Amino acid sequence: MPRLVMKFGGTSVADIERIRNVALHVKRELDAGYHIAVVVSAMAGKTNELVAWCKQANPRFDPAEYDAVVSSGEQVTSGLLALTLQSMGIPARSWQGWQIPIKTTDAHAAARIDDIDAAAILRGFEENGSVAVVAGFQGIHEDSGRITTLGRGGSDTSAVAMAAALEAERCDIYTDVDGVYTTDPRIVPKARRLDRISYEEMLEMASLGAKVLQVRSVELAMIRKVPTYVRSSFDDPADPKLGTLICGEEEIMEHQTVTGIAYSKDESQITLRNVADRPGIAAAIFVPLAEANINVDMIIQVVSDASTTTDITFTVPESEYERTLAILEKNKDAIDFSEVQGETEVVKVSVIGVGMRSHAGVAARAFKALSEKHINIRAITTSEIKFSVLIDAPYAELAVRTLHSLYNLDQV
Amino acid sequence: MPRLVMKFGGTSVADIERIRNVALHVKRELDAGYHIAVVVSAMAGKTNELVAWCKQANPRFDPAEYDAVVSSGEQVTSGLLALTLQSMGIPARSWQGWQIPIKTTDAHAAARIDDIDAAAILRGFEENGSVAVVAGFQGIHEDSGRITTLGRGGSDTSAVAMAAALEAERCDIYTDVDGVYTTDPRIVPKARRLDRISYEEMLEMASLGAKVLQVRSVELAMIRKVPTYVRSSFDDPADPKLGTLICGEEEIMEHQTVTGIAYSKDESQITLRNVADRPGIAAAIFVPLAEANINVDMIIQVVSDASTTTDITFTVPESEYERTLAILEKNKDAIDFSEVQGETEVVKVSVIGVGMRSHAGVAARAFKALSEKHINIRAITTSEIKFSVLIDAPYAELAVRTLHSLYNLDQV
Repeated sequence: MPRLVMKFGGTSVADIERIRNVALHVKRELDAGYHIAVVVSAMAGKTNELVAWCKQANPRFDPAEYDAVVSSGEQVTSGLLALTLQSMGIPARSWQGWQIPIKTTDAHAAARIDDIDAAAILRGFEENGSVAVVAGFQGIHEDSGRITTLGRGGSDTSAVAMAAALEAERCDIYTDVDGVYTTDPRIVPKARRLDRISYEEMLEMASLGAKVLQVRSVELAMIRKVPTYVRSSFDDPADPKLGTLICGEEEIMEHQTVTGIAYSKDESQITLRNVADRPGIAAAIFVPLAEANINVDMIIQVVSDASTTTDITFTVPESEYERTLAILEKNKDAIDFSEVQGETEVVKVSVIGVGMRSHAGVAARAFKALSEKHINIRAITTSEIKFSVLIDAPYAELAVRTLHSLYNLDQV
Repeated sequence: MPRLVMKFGGTSVADIERIRNVALHVKRELDAGYHIAVVVSAMAGKTNELVAWCKQANPRFDPAEYDAVVSSGEQVTSGLLALTLQSMGIPARSWQGWQIPIKTTDAHAAARIDDIDAAAILRGFEENGSVAVVAGFQGIHEDSGRITTLGRGGSDTSAVAMAAALEAERCDIYTDVDGVYTTDPRIVPKARRLDRISYEEMLEMASLGAKVLQVRSVELAMIRKVPTYVRSSFDDPADPKLGTLICGEEEIMEHQTVTGIAYSKDESQITLRNVADRPGIAAAIFVPLAEANINVDMIIQVVSDASTTTDITFTVPESEYERTLAILEKNKDAIDFSEVQGETEVVKVSVIGVGMRSHAGVAARAFKALSEKHINIRAITTSEIKFSVLIDAPYAELAVRTLHSLYNLDQV
């Protein structure tokens, strides 16, 4: 029988009533002839409560103990869903990460999955078709025998990894939206749900601000070629609507040039004025930031022939803005600049589409359209299948709507 | 270094502030030179919440899934206490039942401990004096690899079993009272805290209604000869008060004739009138009740020479009263009785003391004292170190006070 992995997030299992709804979704797929592993998150709000207790107990907490505490949330949900399925006459049992086992690195609170031994779950499938209810977000580091967790949102990654280990036909991610949209429908009411999107595009969308899936889970789906279907858990279980399939490019017949528009508000721009224009200057600026785990994104250097100095502009997440300024100040002598200027009221808007590979001038059309709306572009970065522009925050919605129309993404 | 097990119940770990107080108790004993394992319950109210969810999900729940869900409560507390100890600079780590492992039978929700492998915890003691924070109430059934729980109140049993496995000098049970009293201080304000009580006496006290310890934990302490100290977790950790040591009889220098008075309100009396007085009649009545797991306590048969019938009176827990009547009705033809009479407004008062072994007439003095107060005795049972009387509920407090004074237990 084909195998299916179904994943339900915190709002989908927020109480017993909603867990019962989840069980009905599972029943529908069982009736359709699948062997099923369900991956569940903690009930909505539980993880936050547990994290708050850890911080109260010890602000500089030991991540191994943090993992022991927070992993309990998924343990509860897995047992409750197994009980609910059993109440419908469906054989089911809960599986904790250490029971399967889902083996991970020892990077507590941010572990990566090394390997999943799916043998025990497969035996359950063969014996009585038992539904495996898997606690998401967690695993075990085998040498120490201790519980690990994968970092916030890690249940998506658990689900994709389970699907790969089980050689499942598909991994269905049930969430509170009904799929991946061409852009955020709260900004552009004409945004369309995509029927399909390639792994690469989804990876860019997720990295650039679309919050529907954890970035790591998309990476894993791409590497392990796990078709991943994003759909709504709030549908009528008896009559579910369509979602978005994340799959290989080759399975998408006709590509639009542009697939979607993402935007991110967690951006800030920093400009160093009159930096001495000498070899090693970039290292002097960016090595200390990298060592402080600050993720520098766009970098622009304005080369000026007539001068021995240059201006260097770059972006960091807004949440790292103050820390970045402090590090630059501390290294001012080594870097040798006259002045630092910063701006946090900026937004990054990104245009994504594998079609860009074969279509020239996609970005140029955007620059023209934005300039016609008098939107000033502060910085630009490009890659093979996307480009991003940094603009002033008040123009974010206008820019997204403008580009959405420009590339024919509006719902008709 | 000597080893100590400390156990804290739900009200003692109800929030982070109280967990910090627990950590201070642990620190005091560390400073006194012990290697320490701390056994913790779930935060007050958590187990009830988890049990309610299980019942909501599936009223006829699978006890294996119930165990997966409810054991999470102790998991959380163990991590939070380890974090709190670490915040005070004390090396500590949490241990789940399956990590130690605490091996149990597969009787989910009511498992018994088979064996504890203390090697890993002892290694922690030797390496850096690490405090082992053990999740109480839970273990693992090794063949299935599944989490088991020991039944409500099971953390007391976890603690005593840990103390036996670690060959600890003592098992300290911290609770919301400061020890074992001669009787319930809410009824008799003159009740005294006992400095010491023998295992046998404590077992009777616990079985007969004193709720300070789980009966099984006392049994285990007696069998494994674990000195168990009941004390208050609400004391100032820097200046704790005395509690009650449960120990071998030989360690108690001078025995009072009577050590304590227990009472139980969960009693009901049933009388079968005009039962045919023939061999096998007791089996006809009591085998069906035993098969229904109904615990029959006192049994009185009034033998009447002049008749071929007899009356049989016995007691069952009040909570089983209706079920008992139904079973008797169902077996009426087999038993052959004319009428069944019942009374739930009854109370069992028990007088306990190893001194009874060597002192005659202890019970007779009680019967006389009760009759002087016009308290009617409905039934009597005796054993080597206790006797119990069943009386009408309204006289319970008067009877307890009367006996407490009679045997010189009043505080002076």
